[in-house]
Amino acid sequence: MDLITSLQEITKLSHLYYERQWMYATAGNLSTRDGSSRDQFWITASGKHKGELKDTDFVCVSVADGTLLKASDGLKPSAETSIHQVLYSQMPDIGSCLHVHTIDSNLLEFGVGKEEGSREIPIPPIEIIKAFGIWDEKPNLTMPVFYNHTHVPTIANEIKRYFISVGIPKVPFLLIEGHGPTVWGKSIAEANKHLEAVHFLLQVMARKV
Amino acid sequence: MDLITSLQEITKLSHLYYERQWMYATAGNLSTRDGSSRDQFWITASGKHKGELKDTDFVCVSVADGTLLKASDGLKPSAETSIHQVLYSQMPDIGSCLHVHTIDSNLLEFGVGKEEGSREIPIPPIEIIKAFGIWDEKPNLTMPVFYNHTHVPTIANEIKRYFISVGIPKVPFLLIEGHGPTVWGKSIAEANKHLEAVHFLLQVMARKV
Amino acid sequence: MDLITSLQEITKLSHLYYERQWMYATAGNLSTRDGSSRDQFWITASGKHKGELKDTDFVCVSVADGTLLKASDGLKPSAETSIHQVLYSQMPDIGSCLHVHTIDSNLLEFGVGKEEGSREIPIPPIEIIKAFGIWDEKPNLTMPVFYNHTHVPTIANEIKRYFISVGIPKVPFLLIEGHGPTVWGKSIAEANKHLEAVHFLLQVMARKV
Amino acid sequence: MDLITSLQEITKLSHLYYERQWMYATAGNLSTRDGSSRDQFWITASGKHKGELKDTDFVCVSVADGTLLKASDGLKPSAETSIHQVLYSQMPDIGSCLHVHTIDSNLLEFGVGKEEGSREIPIPPIEIIKAFGIWDEKPNLTMPVFYNHTHVPTIANEIKRYFISVGIPKVPFLLIEGHGPTVWGKSIAEANKHLEAVHFLLQVMARKV
Repeated sequence: MDLITSLQEITKLSHLYYERQWMYATAGNLSTRDGSSRDQFWITASGKHKGELKDTDFVCVSVADGTLLKASDGLKPSAETSIHQVLYSQMPDIGSCLHVHTIDSNLLEFGVGKEEGSREIPIPPIEIIKAFGIWDEKPNLTMPVFYNHTHVPTIANEIKRYFISVGIPKVPFLLIEGHGPTVWGKSIAEANKHLEAVHFLLQVMARKV
Repeated sequence: MDLITSLQEITKLSHLYYERQWMYATAGNLSTRDGSSRDQFWITASGKHKGELKDTDFVCVSVADGTLLKASDGLKPSAETSIHQVLYSQMPDIGSCLHVHTIDSNLLEFGVGKEEGSREIPIPPIEIIKAFGIWDEKPNLTMPVFYNHTHVPTIANEIKRYFISVGIPKVPFLLIEGHGPTVWGKSIAEANKHLEAVHFLLQVMARKV
Repeated sequence: MDLITSLQEITKLSHLYYERQWMYATAGNLSTRDGSSRDQFWITASGKHKGELKDTDFVCVSVADGTLLKASDGLKPSAETSIHQVLYSQMPDIGSCLHVHTIDSNLLEFGVGKEEGSREIPIPPIEIIKAFGIWDEKPNLTMPVFYNHTHVPTIANEIKRYFISVGIPKVPFLLIEGHGPTVWGKSIAEANKHLEAVHFLLQVMARKV
Repeated sequence: MDLITSLQEITKLSHLYYERQWMYATAGNLSTRDGSSRDQFWITASGKHKGELKDTDFVCVSVADGTLLKASDGLKPSAETSIHQVLYSQMPDIGSCLHVHTIDSNLLEFGVGKEEGSREIPIPPIEIIKAFGIWDEKPNLTMPVFYNHTHVPTIANEIKRYFISVGIPKVPFLLIEGHGPTVWGKSIAEANKHLEAVHFLLQVMARKV
């Protein structure tokens, strides 16, 4: 898929996620790796209304170190670019990262501590987990949940440390507590599929009586 | 109704159910019996985005034994085809089966065991039950709930055993725990009516305080 | 407003209410008094898909005794016509009655007995009550809740008895337990306004922790 | 932004908020300061269906004392104009005030007393608070909650007293208990962004288990 088609696809998802109340108040950030130059990715610019995003509202960032490579006048990279940078650099085969704010992910409270940094939280073995490519019967899965540091690069560092010490999570997402999930996939379509499954899963976790 | 009209109608329902969050992450499968050849049915191909389904995204399967009869290049039958096959073969008068994943059906926990296979669960006698053609006042109804085996043909066998030993359920649906409901009806329109009533019922069951 | 405009307006509301999941599985019934002949009203025919209702899907009924006055081929009056008939006959100034099934109204359990017939249930004094034209500060209001007899004319008789013995409720609606609310208003627009406020109120009652 | 563009923008938000069930039953009121004459503002006329609002359904009011300056035939200012007037007069830099009724804001019960008038209520330190321009880590924030006097100018006076004695709230909104939130911003777009964040926040507060 060429770059402009990818950016149009992400833009369409942005409008859809806004309608689903996943990107209210300019929240969230979406990115795609540049198919023809896989050492850079394109991420939504900071502060944009996600229901009115245009396919020109993206900036280009280096996978290696997060350097801003290209940006139209007035566009700044999303405040959470460093998290996307870590994910693309730690997982060379992924092509898209999607981060949204959902009500249900904010209802879940685990009390992960600032010093603790992250914790493994069990997830229920419901059918939708097969969307992650996991076909075990009633698997004992966990998801990594991170402390929501205000200084975003600190979260990015915690994630990097997690990937290096623990490895790539079995599930294609992580959760920042009191903030929202970040998912990834080989393509935009796969990342979107993962996000829909993650939303389903977190809804079940937050509402189960 | 001729086949193409039926497939168009199912396709339209697929888009609608996706919008209702009943078919996120490619979940669920929808089928219709072939009106002119009632010993075969058409079911959604595996892995399709249900909000973008086309009326060509179906494969044709034998009611008698589940053999794949027709499939365009690259299309595989849904992983849950064996369940539809059992339902069409056990109920010669039904014309459509609809299986979706809903949040509320995943909030309900009954703890049906793997060896147990299935259990009768009481349902509340609310007005919407009349949509199933049941007009008794405050009826003591139950719904069959099945264990969610990863090996889908095992679920299909449990359902077949249930139909043979217990009979056709009084309500036009069954539930697979931690997975979702499967409904049926004489026509696509009736199956859709049943599914809307089942969704209403399961919402009430999952949210009642 | 002439009759055809009224029926078009009701039809539009039917589509809107279906989208809001208030009329799933053909549930509910909507009616308008005939402006040029106020001793008759038009009500949705039985069994229609409310998201696909047409302005010809109505039958004409006598306010005095519920006699069917006009009906196109194949159209039967809604099973709950007798309730509308009682409301129009007891309240000569109302012009529309709307009955829907909502999840929240089905979550509320009061245990009204079959012999008891109806009971007054307190409602919280929230701002939305002003939509009923009630401007008292923190009013102690109640709503009448009726037992859901399967034989609908029995419910209609209970309602008639209530109006004769107790009087017209202060709030422009009644609730049938495990079934749904019925609202009324001088015009279709007012009845719709009342229904939106009733839905808001019942949501708050059903979800309050 | 010229006046007509501002009124069109507010009208568009009115339709959107109605769809989100924030303005059912004609509830709520939206206003914008007149950009070319900042000592007056335009507010939705009383009793309008917010899903059908037109950009001519506004009246012009004096910021200094709430006098009605301009109104087309038959239009009356919203019953809650006095609250908007206090907000515009106390905060010379704001350009828009938005007041809606949401289910979640009505689920929250604090028991603020009539004599007490208002109380500070803690809000959870979730990520969405950054939409208010507050970047502290895990801030201990509160929101002012007011008693819902039926006599609206009494609420307006309580708010004025609060602004004079306590100051401008750190968060760009206040809540009237059992009624709904009122938010503000420098522009309509900023006020809308704040409202989306407030809705997110109140949902989390009302649903947290």
